[in-house]
Amino acid sequence: MASTENRFALRRRRLAEALAAEGLDAFLVTSPLSVRYLTGFTGSNGALVVFTDRDPVVCTDGRYTTQIAEEVPDITAEIERRSGVHLASRTEEPATVGIDAARTSMVEYSQLEEAAAAGVTFRPATGVVEQLRLVKDDEELAALRTVAEVANVAFAEMIDAGELRAGRSEREVAADLEYRMRRGGADTTSFDTIVASGPNSAKPHHGADDRVIAQGDLVTIDFGAYLGGYNSDMTRTLAVGEPDDFSREIYQVVLEAQRAGIAAARVGATGAEVDQASRDVIEAAGYGEYFVHSTGHGVGLEVHEAPAAARGSADVLQAGMTVTVEPGIYVPGKGGVRIEDTLIITVDGPETITRFPTELTVLD
Amino acid sequence: MASTENRFALRRRRLAEALAAEGLDAFLVTSPLSVRYLTGFTGSNGALVVFTDRDPVVCTDGRYTTQIAEEVPDITAEIERRSGVHLASRTEEPATVGIDAARTSMVEYSQLEEAAAAGVTFRPATGVVEQLRLVKDDEELAALRTVAEVANVAFAEMIDAGELRAGRSEREVAADLEYRMRRGGADTTSFDTIVASGPNSAKPHHGADDRVIAQGDLVTIDFGAYLGGYNSDMTRTLAVGEPDDFSREIYQVVLEAQRAGIAAARVGATGAEVDQASRDVIEAAGYGEYFVHSTGHGVGLEVHEAPAAARGSADVLQAGMTVTVEPGIYVPGKGGVRIEDTLIITVDGPETITRFPTELTVLD
Repeated sequence: MASTENRFALRRRRLAEALAAEGLDAFLVTSPLSVRYLTGFTGSNGALVVFTDRDPVVCTDGRYTTQIAEEVPDITAEIERRSGVHLASRTEEPATVGIDAARTSMVEYSQLEEAAAAGVTFRPATGVVEQLRLVKDDEELAALRTVAEVANVAFAEMIDAGELRAGRSEREVAADLEYRMRRGGADTTSFDTIVASGPNSAKPHHGADDRVIAQGDLVTIDFGAYLGGYNSDMTRTLAVGEPDDFSREIYQVVLEAQRAGIAAARVGATGAEVDQASRDVIEAAGYGEYFVHSTGHGVGLEVHEAPAAARGSADVLQAGMTVTVEPGIYVPGKGGVRIEDTLIITVDGPETITRFPTELTVLD
Repeated sequence: MASTENRFALRRRRLAEALAAEGLDAFLVTSPLSVRYLTGFTGSNGALVVFTDRDPVVCTDGRYTTQIAEEVPDITAEIERRSGVHLASRTEEPATVGIDAARTSMVEYSQLEEAAAAGVTFRPATGVVEQLRLVKDDEELAALRTVAEVANVAFAEMIDAGELRAGRSEREVAADLEYRMRRGGADTTSFDTIVASGPNSAKPHHGADDRVIAQGDLVTIDFGAYLGGYNSDMTRTLAVGEPDDFSREIYQVVLEAQRAGIAAARVGATGAEVDQASRDVIEAAGYGEYFVHSTGHGVGLEVHEAPAAARGSADVLQAGMTVTVEPGIYVPGKGGVRIEDTLIITVDGPETITRFPTELTVLD
């Protein structure tokens, strides 16, 4: 395994190569996630400038003086509250500097322009670092498997312990699952846990509230752990007590749609093809209008990132990418089902890193 | 108490008045927090356009069709994935439309410009909705007291239960505290819980890792609950076993600094004055260089918002504002202390809504 320093230096070298190819002399990285990806620095405020022809400089504020020295021993660190603006002012000679137009606000852009030394021109660019992040390296894939397993174990243990049952509130079930993930090693959750029971299951992004789970409910649980910078993402819908025929029917349709999506997630497939594979099953069953979101997305430093498994997505799956497959049916007033796994794309087909049976589990 | 509809309608009316005063015909709100503030919609994707002379329109994507109908019965809702861009295209006549320049990226701005109908001019503005949010109304103050109390109770119960003790990891303590907040009614945490023990306490924004707490450690715990859209924020530093003289000394300095900051947090004081009151105490004790952050910030829909209690802050405290007072001393390699309360500013002086003794607690 490469040392920590080498891994980040390699990523910066790849970025510098990408810049040279685009006619940029430097890139000013202001997204904390991308700063982390390129340096290992885990603070919430920081910036990095990567040059094509000289050593990078990193900057953060005074809260992180000790931390940055420990985490980034191999790059000159400067301490200044407005890190991005400071680094903009440090680029001293005629240069074309790329900035991330998708993460730079109009206010920040004005501040950078004001701070920039004479001769510096900013060029808005998008997805430069994200492009590098698309294909995960071995350390990242290991981190993704680890965090997915924390969530897998927590979920299975929660179900085994009988914590999902009639009479308990959605909020209690969410708290138990999050506690198990935390105790199992997660730094935090990757997003607010969804526990959507009965009629709430018809709302794809319901949270977890005080509704008490009733016998016969479908309960959709969408959850993720966050550990060491990486996220997990998984959804299961379970039945608490015997579900009605309608619930069983939509469950089966979603399950077949999910299997079709996974089968389509092969090297060379587009995100649109994965989406269509799931969507075809749901449309053929007559529920097309109730599948109101995309089939999936990448998972990494962000819980939602490229590639998109969505209508019109030209993203081409490659080995080392991740993608979720999470079709759903949501019938307002009646109920809903979503089943989601996270996959690592490999040359031998998809590796599913989320684990729990996808066949309908009916709890007593 | 005003009905839900009236509260949000009142806020929109105040926004419309602010727009008219600035020569704007409309304002396009794209920040989810501000959309929530102005409509009650709690989804993660949405936009709102408020006009000076006609009814507002709200927009979200298909995941939230059911939810927006329930939460925002009084405004016309349109369903479209790119909500802000969609509403930009819906403004049909010559108009000057304000947009939030601090939350609109360069990419989003280009998209809005492209989508806009002929005759529409965007004018970048900052802080328009935030300005309205500075002084909290009674419902907001009640929500802030409620969420602070969830955190207060969770923390006191955790200490009473002996969960903070030598031999346990920072991560375990953080998990216990978060679980107690969640079970106590929190939707989630307002930020990642900090449990910084021993040498880690010298890092103001350390998270909570696998370090095992040892006898004699100072342990700084910075935590918040999130409930109904509002956040809490509180920090205590406790001693696990008898602390050394250095620890006792810096604790006492920070405690006096915190009391001075609270005493200064009166109607009419500037944020700079509050900061200076705390900073003076720490500088007089010779630790000025180790107080590496500002004294405080507002707490509301965001856990960090205006006013700033910081050097140079001209924000003037008014009744109904919130502010934290959280001085700290961090001596790399030796240890640190931070003590933080959240205050509501009232005409009768500050109301401290976070509760736990600030005198040094020494646990067995």
